[in-house]
Amino acid sequence: LSANSFGNLFKVTSFGESHGVALGAVIEGCPAGLEVDLEFLHAEMNRRRPGFHGDPTQAVTSARVEKDQVEILSGVFEGKTLGTPIAMIVRNEDQRSRDYDQIKQLARSGHADDVWKAKFGHSDHRGGGRSSGRETVSRVMAGAVAKMLIKKLSPELQLRSYVSGIGEIAVSPSEVENFQSGSESCEAHLLRMPSSKNKDALELLKKAQVIGESFGGEVSTLVQGAPAGLGQPVFHKLKADLAQAMLSIGATSGFEIGDGFLASEKLGTKFHTDSKSRVYGGLRGGISTGENIFFKVSFKPTSSILDVAKRGRHDPCIVIRATPVVEAMTALVLADHLLWQRLDRV
Amino acid sequence: LSANSFGNLFKVTSFGESHGVALGAVIEGCPAGLEVDLEFLHAEMNRRRPGFHGDPTQAVTSARVEKDQVEILSGVFEGKTLGTPIAMIVRNEDQRSRDYDQIKQLARSGHADDVWKAKFGHSDHRGGGRSSGRETVSRVMAGAVAKMLIKKLSPELQLRSYVSGIGEIAVSPSEVENFQSGSESCEAHLLRMPSSKNKDALELLKKAQVIGESFGGEVSTLVQGAPAGLGQPVFHKLKADLAQAMLSIGATSGFEIGDGFLASEKLGTKFHTDSKSRVYGGLRGGISTGENIFFKVSFKPTSSILDVAKRGRHDPCIVIRATPVVEAMTALVLADHLLWQRLDRV
Amino acid sequence: LSANSFGNLFKVTSFGESHGVALGAVIEGCPAGLEVDLEFLHAEMNRRRPGFHGDPTQAVTSARVEKDQVEILSGVFEGKTLGTPIAMIVRNEDQRSRDYDQIKQLARSGHADDVWKAKFGHSDHRGGGRSSGRETVSRVMAGAVAKMLIKKLSPELQLRSYVSGIGEIAVSPSEVENFQSGSESCEAHLLRMPSSKNKDALELLKKAQVIGESFGGEVSTLVQGAPAGLGQPVFHKLKADLAQAMLSIGATSGFEIGDGFLASEKLGTKFHTDSKSRVYGGLRGGISTGENIFFKVSFKPTSSILDVAKRGRHDPCIVIRATPVVEAMTALVLADHLLWQRLDRV
Amino acid sequence: LSANSFGNLFKVTSFGESHGVALGAVIEGCPAGLEVDLEFLHAEMNRRRPGFHGDPTQAVTSARVEKDQVEILSGVFEGKTLGTPIAMIVRNEDQRSRDYDQIKQLARSGHADDVWKAKFGHSDHRGGGRSSGRETVSRVMAGAVAKMLIKKLSPELQLRSYVSGIGEIAVSPSEVENFQSGSESCEAHLLRMPSSKNKDALELLKKAQVIGESFGGEVSTLVQGAPAGLGQPVFHKLKADLAQAMLSIGATSGFEIGDGFLASEKLGTKFHTDSKSRVYGGLRGGISTGENIFFKVSFKPTSSILDVAKRGRHDPCIVIRATPVVEAMTALVLADHLLWQRLDRV
Repeated sequence: LSANSFGNLFKVTSFGESHGVALGAVIEGCPAGLEVDLEFLHAEMNRRRPGFHGDPTQAVTSARVEKDQVEILSGVFEGKTLGTPIAMIVRNEDQRSRDYDQIKQLARSGHADDVWKAKFGHSDHRGGGRSSGRETVSRVMAGAVAKMLIKKLSPELQLRSYVSGIGEIAVSPSEVENFQSGSESCEAHLLRMPSSKNKDALELLKKAQVIGESFGGEVSTLVQGAPAGLGQPVFHKLKADLAQAMLSIGATSGFEIGDGFLASEKLGTKFHTDSKSRVYGGLRGGISTGENIFFKVSFKPTSSILDVAKRGRHDPCIVIRATPVVEAMTALVLADHLLWQRLDRV
Repeated sequence: LSANSFGNLFKVTSFGESHGVALGAVIEGCPAGLEVDLEFLHAEMNRRRPGFHGDPTQAVTSARVEKDQVEILSGVFEGKTLGTPIAMIVRNEDQRSRDYDQIKQLARSGHADDVWKAKFGHSDHRGGGRSSGRETVSRVMAGAVAKMLIKKLSPELQLRSYVSGIGEIAVSPSEVENFQSGSESCEAHLLRMPSSKNKDALELLKKAQVIGESFGGEVSTLVQGAPAGLGQPVFHKLKADLAQAMLSIGATSGFEIGDGFLASEKLGTKFHTDSKSRVYGGLRGGISTGENIFFKVSFKPTSSILDVAKRGRHDPCIVIRATPVVEAMTALVLADHLLWQRLDRV
Repeated sequence: LSANSFGNLFKVTSFGESHGVALGAVIEGCPAGLEVDLEFLHAEMNRRRPGFHGDPTQAVTSARVEKDQVEILSGVFEGKTLGTPIAMIVRNEDQRSRDYDQIKQLARSGHADDVWKAKFGHSDHRGGGRSSGRETVSRVMAGAVAKMLIKKLSPELQLRSYVSGIGEIAVSPSEVENFQSGSESCEAHLLRMPSSKNKDALELLKKAQVIGESFGGEVSTLVQGAPAGLGQPVFHKLKADLAQAMLSIGATSGFEIGDGFLASEKLGTKFHTDSKSRVYGGLRGGISTGENIFFKVSFKPTSSILDVAKRGRHDPCIVIRATPVVEAMTALVLADHLLWQRLDRV
Repeated sequence: LSANSFGNLFKVTSFGESHGVALGAVIEGCPAGLEVDLEFLHAEMNRRRPGFHGDPTQAVTSARVEKDQVEILSGVFEGKTLGTPIAMIVRNEDQRSRDYDQIKQLARSGHADDVWKAKFGHSDHRGGGRSSGRETVSRVMAGAVAKMLIKKLSPELQLRSYVSGIGEIAVSPSEVENFQSGSESCEAHLLRMPSSKNKDALELLKKAQVIGESFGGEVSTLVQGAPAGLGQPVFHKLKADLAQAMLSIGATSGFEIGDGFLASEKLGTKFHTDSKSRVYGGLRGGISTGENIFFKVSFKPTSSILDVAKRGRHDPCIVIRATPVVEAMTALVLADHLLWQRLDRV
């Protein structure tokens, strides 16, 4: 029983409050002998971070500057994993609750501060505590190690999440075809959106930032080259674990595998004979078939918009920052199931 | 680690193959002293069963007759739970693999038989084994006990799932308003669809059965009167556990809480100030607020359509039968979190 | 969280009350493709059973006749495991609570009836419910499957438990040397005690049965040919899991690995240089070294002695019947760790 | 699945290598609103530490100086727990592997270095990594919080571990009677041994240190005032969880509850009628009865003795330092079961 642990074999425990001493993750179940690529780890952390140099989204994301230097406390020795728990932390640079003292009085609309307070009796009112987006630091750290493991166990596997919708601007499947068949990550695209519409989206967000508006959005994930056989029926089907992973991220409101809700409107005779499509999302019976795995996650409009007058700049669409988090959670699920597969047969 | 167990404190282990000896469920963690209502248990089983007397859907669901008499093997004594594991089984009346011998040769399109075979090396080809819809017998049995526990712990809580879409026929929110404010279950409605459009839907399905067509669909769930504080951040937020529960059901392709994917297109200023709506789905920060909880699940078109010529009648839209399963899984999640809440405070 | 599940990867859920409908076990995590030897399964069940034909202990064990026919409900198809949960049950032949109606009134000394009642509020007073020795039916069933898996994964491994003490009669290490180096099970020996003293012990127990006396005892286990590397530090060291397994058996009062409490009195210079001995018990750092694994379990005197006047014949020393249970629990631990070892390295 | 987590509801994840960056513990499942007593936490850490000022054992314990300043990273805000994971670390002051470079070549007898290396392929040879006694830092930190929770939930409960044997010097039950009925901790006694024999023991150990000898020993634990009903049959009986907890500690070789192995030699008519004794150890059916809980743990002679020539001073008997660790693990088990009890009844 653990509300803050994720995974079955590759298990991550996340800890830390937004304005506490540190955020951290402990990975249990990472096999011994995995080479740990620190440069990659830091690059992944940078992707999560708002406002870093070279971030195409920096113009429109939250102004809080975070340095997020990861310190590995255990589990790695001479560049390789030991088979013992890997503990990693990122210190919160600025723990002064100064900016948040006034918040103590007023609940922020759309935020969960009051809900936490009601539930636990005692809560950390400074910037949301663990309901803050900052909690995703732990997920991205752990996800980076999961990616290293995936690369080792299944070198062909390519995992990429990207922004596929901002407000009413949606990326059509044909637009991302190049992206899908190539090997580039979403970082190459403005707003992490692989579509020529991303310039319009940027305009939209810039304006939103000025007038105090926000938008929901959508993140899509494509996994190419995954082996067949991932997923453990009946309760840990790959789609079930992905759905849990995605809906555990803040501000998410939906999950679709393959054709998703669109599938519900299709004729069976068309749906099941659609030769080249992603209608199934790469799974049958909840188990990967070796085809491309495809799923989408929807996000609500940012709620901090409402307090913008009080708090200055805000992030008008969370999906740009959420993309690396979606990718990290996907990596956690895949690493977990790559290990689990070792137990399938005698 | 257990692929066939669901839940954290109220934990269900499901077992049994479609054409094996029996289907079953073992519930661990049900507190002692709960009165067990056998009549209710059997009524719930009847709702899951196709073709029973009085089923408004019998005209259009699969022809296989299942009696599904539950036998409680343990955990209940003199009408009350003992605090020990509650084991329940339903025997498969007809285990003859006769009808399925030919299937051994040909993989059924859209089914998972070949995927299982590839994964485990050895598989039960008779009617899908555990990838069969029959596996949901275990879920409905366990869900019935979960409902009894919910009724005891949170008497105000009303839980109802219903068919909200069949192919392109969708039920509008205003149509279900009566349903939502009343206390009737979906059983009162033709096709479990609380809308006057259900007659059109019935015509559609009857025709589909003749011409060998099938449709996807959508099941909605409304929970009224749930206490605030359900859900355990960050990985067992209520929406995360619901998403896993729903995507563990066969043929599902999507999950939406509150406004779901629609939320991704909305303006923040509208979304967060929508006073009377279900935009959040009754949760904030993944924790129930005491408001109505609302979510939807999408289902793919039935795949057995493709083999209809070989196999006779078929079920042209799975959502009618899936509705009690969605309700059962919801009950499992709620029972689990009602217990978990006991551990929140010192 | 599950009080009635044991194991990490090879996980057993035990259910059933002594005088309920059935006892059962569900095994999750047994890999697919394992051949299931039904004859062996039934032979193991017979070893547990008191009073069966050919049982050298029948003269001195409890008079209750149990047939214990195992029915496999799921998880096995065409003689092999499917990778799905293996559910097995044994029906209780005689569920009439007649004999136990009087017990309802008076708590049986040394038994746990009153403790269960105080804890759960509601309890099954008929023959102890789940605190009865009959609960071990589930353990022996599951242990038999674990042994099949061990035989497949580690064919050299030999696992044998035997009675090494009854009251003050103890088996010296030299006496069991033949037993250890051979391959026979304890069944070949009167009272499952591989020592010429077993005749004296039999006399002792026969007399005890007449005069209403009982004795405690000791069961030893020797594992030969186990691979090195079993055990997962720091909380699932092999000795930790064995200790939990053993102390979960009713009437146990102690566990020793290797030299056990004797080690506490030894000089380090002697202890650590003892070249040929079992001082470490085959483990270092809680991990198997490839040497013989050796441990002992102590049992309290049978408590039912106290009510003998009311209830007729009794079992004056529980260790004879407990030996197959100790062996079964050992098999569960070993099977679990043989699988876990697959996850050690990248 | 997690080899480095302990507990069911009050769950501790331990991490850190002996000569790595830090040792740490993450507690999941500690309810919100518990006041955290930092002074007590540090006092507990000091008890574990060798060589601190005022330690009656300092003359005879290992020379390595450890400051062990605990830093709480999360889960506590304004002096109270938040209901979120509590992460705590202690940095290793001296991470220089200098002293241990030579060890890389030669395996230390009795240590587990070679076993770890064989198991995981890659291991931390510096001072044992996680097989070092230093790993207990995590246990004592977590145990201190567990004690705070116990004090809140069950104020009458008194938990005390003490040294009851060093080599052949044993503390008789009558000698500790005062200790048991009083409220003092073992700290008041030389060598943590509540017996006048402790002076002889000190002489023995001083001599051992000079001549390069070591001794095994025994730690006893007495719990007074625990509520009835702790323990969850059948696999998490209190004795089973205590046995796992104890045998997870390094150098342990045995566990006895109540009369332990002595019980195996007793007559049932005497044993079960022994009115005032601890024969049952405070449990029946694995569940606490409200009487005193009593158990013992045995430890092997220190193995580092063998390398003493190479390494200077050594600890000739581990039990003095192990006593706070036994107490901490006991606290973890009790805290866990105090919470679990909340789930017993409807």
